[in-house]
Amino acid sequence: MNLAQVARLLAGIAAFLTLAQLPPLVMALTEPAAPGLSATSGFVASLIIGGVVAVLLWLAGRGQHQQVYRKEAIAVAGLSWILAGLLGAVPLQWSGVILDPIDAVFETVSGLTTCGATVLASGDNPAIESVPRSLLLWRAMLQWIGGLGIVLVFAALLPAMGVTSKNLLTSETVGVGTDTYQPRVLDKARLIILIYVGLTTACTALLMLVGGFGLFDAICHAFTTLATGGYSTRSSVGAFDSLGGEIVLIVFMFLAGASFAVVATHMRSGWKCVRTLLRTGEFRIYTIITLGLIAVLTVSLLEVGVPFGKALRQAAFNGVSVLTSTGYATADFHAWPTISIVLLFSAMFVGGCTGSTAGGIKQVRVLVILKLFAYTIRHFVRPKSVERIKLDEEVLPAAVISSILAIVLLWIISIVAGAAVISLDDRLNFVASFSISASMIGSCGPALTIVDPAHAADVVLNGGTAATLANTINVGPFGGYGELYDGTKIVLIFQMVLGRLELLTLLALLTPSFWRR
Amino acid sequence: MNLAQVARLLAGIAAFLTLAQLPPLVMALTEPAAPGLSATSGFVASLIIGGVVAVLLWLAGRGQHQQVYRKEAIAVAGLSWILAGLLGAVPLQWSGVILDPIDAVFETVSGLTTCGATVLASGDNPAIESVPRSLLLWRAMLQWIGGLGIVLVFAALLPAMGVTSKNLLTSETVGVGTDTYQPRVLDKARLIILIYVGLTTACTALLMLVGGFGLFDAICHAFTTLATGGYSTRSSVGAFDSLGGEIVLIVFMFLAGASFAVVATHMRSGWKCVRTLLRTGEFRIYTIITLGLIAVLTVSLLEVGVPFGKALRQAAFNGVSVLTSTGYATADFHAWPTISIVLLFSAMFVGGCTGSTAGGIKQVRVLVILKLFAYTIRHFVRPKSVERIKLDEEVLPAAVISSILAIVLLWIISIVAGAAVISLDDRLNFVASFSISASMIGSCGPALTIVDPAHAADVVLNGGTAATLANTINVGPFGGYGELYDGTKIVLIFQMVLGRLELLTLLALLTPSFWRR
Repeated sequence: MNLAQVARLLAGIAAFLTLAQLPPLVMALTEPAAPGLSATSGFVASLIIGGVVAVLLWLAGRGQHQQVYRKEAIAVAGLSWILAGLLGAVPLQWSGVILDPIDAVFETVSGLTTCGATVLASGDNPAIESVPRSLLLWRAMLQWIGGLGIVLVFAALLPAMGVTSKNLLTSETVGVGTDTYQPRVLDKARLIILIYVGLTTACTALLMLVGGFGLFDAICHAFTTLATGGYSTRSSVGAFDSLGGEIVLIVFMFLAGASFAVVATHMRSGWKCVRTLLRTGEFRIYTIITLGLIAVLTVSLLEVGVPFGKALRQAAFNGVSVLTSTGYATADFHAWPTISIVLLFSAMFVGGCTGSTAGGIKQVRVLVILKLFAYTIRHFVRPKSVERIKLDEEVLPAAVISSILAIVLLWIISIVAGAAVISLDDRLNFVASFSISASMIGSCGPALTIVDPAHAADVVLNGGTAATLANTINVGPFGGYGELYDGTKIVLIFQMVLGRLELLTLLALLTPSFWRR
Repeated sequence: MNLAQVARLLAGIAAFLTLAQLPPLVMALTEPAAPGLSATSGFVASLIIGGVVAVLLWLAGRGQHQQVYRKEAIAVAGLSWILAGLLGAVPLQWSGVILDPIDAVFETVSGLTTCGATVLASGDNPAIESVPRSLLLWRAMLQWIGGLGIVLVFAALLPAMGVTSKNLLTSETVGVGTDTYQPRVLDKARLIILIYVGLTTACTALLMLVGGFGLFDAICHAFTTLATGGYSTRSSVGAFDSLGGEIVLIVFMFLAGASFAVVATHMRSGWKCVRTLLRTGEFRIYTIITLGLIAVLTVSLLEVGVPFGKALRQAAFNGVSVLTSTGYATADFHAWPTISIVLLFSAMFVGGCTGSTAGGIKQVRVLVILKLFAYTIRHFVRPKSVERIKLDEEVLPAAVISSILAIVLLWIISIVAGAAVISLDDRLNFVASFSISASMIGSCGPALTIVDPAHAADVVLNGGTAATLANTINVGPFGGYGELYDGTKIVLIFQMVLGRLELLTLLALLTPSFWRR
């Protein structure tokens, strides 16, 4: 392990995250003072701390310009989240908005991983509406930066290192930094940034034009929509009461959950790149699952007496929000009928497409597993038949299928193990423990819990926040994570990063053999 | 598909199940009459119907003595459960105990699959205490027969056909009935029967001597313990209030969840066969998981104020009962702290060892997956390392590992899909839907639901049955399945058979290609 080289790479991340605070600092300077809060001093302190950290790391890594190897790259991928989580939390904590440092780090990591779980409006933390706008912008920026970062890592950096979802377990490629690939990687990264910025701009404009959002709200929501992050500038997107805005957000959440990587790879062929995207098996199953989810959620709401228009609107918005791991809410959806809860829980697990900002196990893995099961049954009946499993006209090697099975199972085991730890807090019941775990690992944000059955029907029909059972914490879409124990929050922070890195990178970091020479 | 041959084999099963009703019929003749119930007429009707069915099937399959091929064997394996489920239900329904035919079939299939879920004492069905003893004996016999049947199928019949858990997906062997293997199969089957009968006898004797059980209760509990079935002759094993009896049951539940197949294979070497069993990786992880489960359950009960002796006794009995998929209960354990619920749910999933009567995904698969993950992480860090995954000193081929991953995932997907269907009944919440699904597929029996938090603490400390939330059904250890909709019950019947056959056999039956020539 070349620690100096790791330090050099981390210095860049620290510097970038520090400089990114200049726009919200400018905004903070123009804001009226709020009693007990000072966004300006938060950002100033953060610039100083971040600057010092960046310089120290740079000094530690000075002169390290040789090739970056697999181990160092994995170390940077893991450690950068921890570093960014600490540095990004400084303005939130120093400004006086989130006083508990663990809460501040939770909120920051939740932002960077595009999870979107919040401690605001719960525990000792203020409601979102009383947080200075400059800090709300910083929260949204954390998601936007984190979303872009993860797409670049998974769609450009890791493939260049020979680490892709297809060969994650079988790759023998160890080095990066050779001359042959760098131009292609940079090219692809540039295209991805272009698409990301373009869609964000379009989303901002449409939110203002169609949704009637103000510039600030439009920018913040565009940031957190394209990142499938889910931080809002209000306690609920429902507070805007804008049908147009919700439709724009549904469309852009769906787009953000589709593969930027596919589009970027085929962008040279112009508009054909869109046709290529539409033809991939992953995009097709993503569309089918999205429509199916909306349909069943709508029917389940109709069953309990919600009028059709309202049922479809709530089902589409909240269903797409959970499936794409965004996490916005316009309804307290854990009060919905049980079938909806089961499907939303499953949606947290599945998530969006590979090469997108969305979390979850990803649609392509679901597709491969479905294909494998159909194949398995056919093969069990006719053991002598010769047949291959194909994805987008390419035969999938057995090693790739095994690696997909392994990572899906590891994902499930991580959720169950996480739920077991989370459930040590007896204020979180079975549903809450499992859905928090799935939501954190799947980068979704809100979780689900059992609401008091006496009030559930009323909330479904008339809106509002459902009461949870006695002695339980509301971690639902209108609840928050502020009341959890510090130990639980640290576990959740770990889970968010674990899920965002799709497990292996972080797990590799945790094995002792990794740190040996 | 040679349907005549399938009929001939099914005729044997029908004849056996009909003749097995002679002992309970003799018992019924000596019983005092109960108002509105007639066990005697139930058994007489069943003997006539079963006899006719057996003769008709025998006539349809007359003269079919050629070799049995893979397809026909799979068809018999699947159809025999349906046939036995229908025939075995006749005495329960005709006697007037369980009037709804679907309920009667549910109870019978639950018995044969050694699931142990009951419709008694719920819906329109009578309490267990008011069921004639001859029919309670029949319920226990159904489990004992089903348990023995499944061990014989998985430990002797399927391996002889080239279908084992190790090569289920890769086997190219298609025929059975060759001269070479039959003596070995019969030999092994005979040894398994010997062990099963021996342990049942020992369990009966110890329940009488140590537990103070009467002969009838001792026999019935020995039957349902060795089968890891869980049908009791009282509404709860706690009703016997016998510490000695509970200890005997814990020991024999644990033994019933261990591999009869390993013991039978090495029985020629005398007592060494026990040493061989103790040395297998599966038995070791089974022991570790059992002890770990008991420890955590005990601590979680201590935390809420249960005294140590009582906590250990309840944790050991109910923990081993759920892990071995038996399903007896001495406490309303879904009122326990959330961590216990999460662990009991996971235990339903895991189950006992291969070659035992226990359900679940089986301990050896858990072991292989743990080994695989350790390997995966090591390999991710050091892609060039050469290493193999071993089980009991044998290297596991990649195809075997893939097939294990596939079946575990298919198991999980079956549970989630089942939970989605079950949750269409809004009286079953998230926990109930998932735990019913896991309990049916894992052959456990009882499920879990959310109890009213106001009463939970009292029930944990002082015993009794916890109240569930308003408008929900109690499917917990002291509840029953009688109130579910008929459609749901049919789904659960399907799930019980699905889990008992470890999915593939039944799924293969459901594909159209299976039925083509």
